Amino acid sequence: MIEVFSTPPTDRFFEDYKVGATYECGSFTMTEADIIAFASVYDPQAMHVDRKLAAEGPFGEIIASGWQTIGLAMRLMVDNFLPHNGLAAPGIDELRWTRPVRPGDTVSIRITVTEARRSRSKPDRGLIHSLFEGVNQNGDVVLSLKPMSMVRVRNPE
Amino acid sequence: MIEVFSTPPTDRFFEDYKVGATYECGSFTMTEADIIAFASVYDPQAMHVDRKLAAEGPFGEIIASGWQTIGLAMRLMVDNFLPHNGLAAPGIDELRWTRPVRPGDTVSIRITVTEARRSRSKPDRGLIHSLFEGVNQNGDVVLSLKPMSMVRVRNPE
Repeated sequence: MIEVFSTPPTDRFFEDYKVGATYECGSFTMTEADIIAFASVYDPQAMHVDRKLAAEGPFGEIIASGWQTIGLAMRLMVDNFLPHNGLAAPGIDELRWTRPVRPGDTVSIRITVTEARRSRSKPDRGLIHSLFEGVNQNGDVVLSLKPMSMVRVRNPE
Repeated sequence: MIEVFSTPPTDRFFEDYKVGATYECGSFTMTEADIIAFASVYDPQAMHVDRKLAAEGPFGEIIASGWQTIGLAMRLMVDNFLPHNGLAAPGIDELRWTRPVRPGDTVSIRITVTEARRSRSKPDRGLIHSLFEGVNQNGDVVLSLKPMSMVRVRNPE
């Protein structure tokens, strides 16, 4: 079973995101069965679904699909960083899977605000840029990306 | 039920990826139930899981999590573009969700090779850059990204 540890905050608005602030967003752990179940639908490459071929490959065992890792990381971002009932995200830059995520690894998510800018055309919202990192139990970064998040302003005036 | 249409090719190697070639990779369609089931685990934002709040929001109904869309797009990439038993992907650049994906939309995937370069340090492989687009039944691009794929060379010599 996929285990997700996270402690959702009260609601947030644009004014709450301070450049330089880091949010510790909880962690997740997957079993080999979780990895195979997801990858069988979304990413059926041998390294994610075939124990025999994976054992002979460069990682020596099944590793998680990067899309499952990022899906769970997104879950922690939704629970711990984004406002409730948020706005659609325009995109992601520089997504990198820097190390494999193996069965039993615990991946902790931290998000640092790098830029916060009010929209000129739509003054009820602002765009938050952040650096998003997944770190395993050994302190190694396994995942990094630079999301953009559109959030509501508390007091648009 | 999620419907995926795809016709996997025979195996491919680095030499097979020609710059400028476009691969039509099939399509997928999701029901509202598929969208809610995925988002309940990976991306439980109101616009993906709460019919009432979604109806009041900017899209007027439930829309798919961008991570589910990209997961299914990845499935079509695995089936129709990548080699069998491939190598780990280093990352993605410029991921953009340009329009919402709604229940019943049919999203077709096309991938165009933009760069193909042999590795200097590891001559048994090469790096393929591509432009990856998801297009709905109206011809609108709903998803675009620039993946990097590491693939084996057929004849390393």
